Amino acid sequence: MDAAPNDPTLHEAGELEALRRFLPLLPAGDVTDIGPGDDAAVVRAADGRFVVTTDTMLEGADFRLGWSSWRDLGWKAVATNLIDVAAMGARPTSLVVALAVAPSTRVSALEAFARGLADAIAAMAPGCGVVGGDLGTAPHATIAVTAFGDLEARAPVLRSGARVTDAVWCAGGLGLAATGLRHLFSQAQDEAAVPVAAAAERLRAGAHGRAVAAQLAPVTPITAGTLLADLGATAMLDVSDGLALDAARVARASGVRIALERSGVEAAAAEALAMGAPLEAALHGGEDHALLFTLPAGVQPPAELVGHAVHRLGRVEALADDEQPGVTLDAAPLEPRGWDPYRAVQR
Amino acid sequence: MDAAPNDPTLHEAGELEALRRFLPLLPAGDVTDIGPGDDAAVVRAADGRFVVTTDTMLEGADFRLGWSSWRDLGWKAVATNLIDVAAMGARPTSLVVALAVAPSTRVSALEAFARGLADAIAAMAPGCGVVGGDLGTAPHATIAVTAFGDLEARAPVLRSGARVTDAVWCAGGLGLAATGLRHLFSQAQDEAAVPVAAAAERLRAGAHGRAVAAQLAPVTPITAGTLLADLGATAMLDVSDGLALDAARVARASGVRIALERSGVEAAAAEALAMGAPLEAALHGGEDHALLFTLPAGVQPPAELVGHAVHRLGRVEALADDEQPGVTLDAAPLEPRGWDPYRAVQR
Repeated sequence: MDAAPNDPTLHEAGELEALRRFLPLLPAGDVTDIGPGDDAAVVRAADGRFVVTTDTMLEGADFRLGWSSWRDLGWKAVATNLIDVAAMGARPTSLVVALAVAPSTRVSALEAFARGLADAIAAMAPGCGVVGGDLGTAPHATIAVTAFGDLEARAPVLRSGARVTDAVWCAGGLGLAATGLRHLFSQAQDEAAVPVAAAAERLRAGAHGRAVAAQLAPVTPITAGTLLADLGATAMLDVSDGLALDAARVARASGVRIALERSGVEAAAAEALAMGAPLEAALHGGEDHALLFTLPAGVQPPAELVGHAVHRLGRVEALADDEQPGVTLDAAPLEPRGWDPYRAVQR
Repeated sequence: MDAAPNDPTLHEAGELEALRRFLPLLPAGDVTDIGPGDDAAVVRAADGRFVVTTDTMLEGADFRLGWSSWRDLGWKAVATNLIDVAAMGARPTSLVVALAVAPSTRVSALEAFARGLADAIAAMAPGCGVVGGDLGTAPHATIAVTAFGDLEARAPVLRSGARVTDAVWCAGGLGLAATGLRHLFSQAQDEAAVPVAAAAERLRAGAHGRAVAAQLAPVTPITAGTLLADLGATAMLDVSDGLALDAARVARASGVRIALERSGVEAAAAEALAMGAPLEAALHGGEDHALLFTLPAGVQPPAELVGHAVHRLGRVEALADDEQPGVTLDAAPLEPRGWDPYRAVQR
């Protein structure tokens, strides 16, 4: 980035000036009593409970500044955290963001990050607010988001609620984010594995652009969470670590077999498969953040929910004697292999 | 650390096994409906509101693994985050922790971190629970904590509530944490500025041990928060960035002059001064996490609150015409200089 008289580095600007430019860009939220600026925020919880989830995005492990813009990172922080709130059957009300970046980062980067947060909230979770945060410095950028939701008197939809004879469904595509990441790795870094920003931009504008966008700035079915809870979803989670691993989590928590059908998974992965991606991307690739849910047999969800196609992936079956909870694909055991943060390669 | 058959690295153990050993060490909390293990936790909020604060501790900027043990880091994460909840006049109910460390870290380090969290909660905020978290990897360790509190029908105590004629008070000592940090910098690193663990341990056992402990594993007056709110505190915050800077925050938010008296500050800093520390450590050093608060004139707090001495530091005065809100020490302007994350040296 070019130096500009009105775009100092964070070191030059200091925290007070950085906050003066950052905070006004953030949405206040519908149920915020006290927003940023004191020791803590105060958020209304009419339900008498609040839902809370936390996640950290780390430069290297989770993103590269050569591929993601600061706006992308703000957008993705919202998209991937609020979907965890939605997967409980709750409406996202608010979030806090702790951001640590190099002191040489420009204030305009902070502003772009704030715009990403604001744009994502406007697009996917209107009414949600950014109620607090923390700024710090780190040699590798660190984004820690904690998000909150209101169950609005619903029972939370847990992973443990899947019942034998339920059908297994998915709202949102599978395999696109992993396909986008594969393209970035193969076509947007140089021989020394350094990200090439121009190549990433070309990819994003090209034939695989939707896959790259699904990786860098995903659109997740956040508002579908409460709709599915009201429809009677018995279990729900977002597919963050790959279908096989996340379905295995439901199977284990519920004590059942999740019997997936290849035809259903292929339908949910149609866009990625049409790009030439292997089914592997849908089964074991992560970061799609589609909602995986179970519904009692006979309950038919809409074919599309808040812009995301809904596909039937299979059904919930009873375990045989001595069978461990797990996942099958066309009746063959499916290995619960997916994203493990401690075993992943650094991006 | 030595390799041990039952102490694999996180890379060897994987996330599932690491969580199996980490989670049982954490306190559940008194008002937790759904704890760790699903997409999100559910926490009861009988008051119909919840208090939330977030803070990140980063290796390099905020701590060094050569000086802090993993137990220290868990302890400090609790001590420094829950005091922000307390400073609103709320009782801490719960927190979530996102922890990113090198994949070569041993599972026993995770366990020590969990014990630090649990021990600190038992000592300073009994009843509080660790309700969720996130594990990841990073070349530099990153600890992001978000903490929650219950106002129990109180109005939140803000920075903006100080009124002219109020007295200014402090619960807890000033200057110790900065003194401890100074000793660590001068006596517990080698010529290349690499931390020397054995030297830090010797310091901690020596004459300045309480200062070093105040830096590495502080005991903060968390349960004093609700007591002071009930006593009628008009403004309150914790002294995290130094008295001068934090008092200036109250002055600005309240539109007043905070007139500190040297004798009061010296009394609050007595332990650090007795170790030979300059008053500068109390005025501009950070990380003491004492509670700075204002009370209407005539309201006398106890001389000691939950093990922390209480000192009168001065009073709240009206601004003269054209005077900007600020802080004075014995009537001379006091520069609002203290900790600024973007301008600090890396530790």
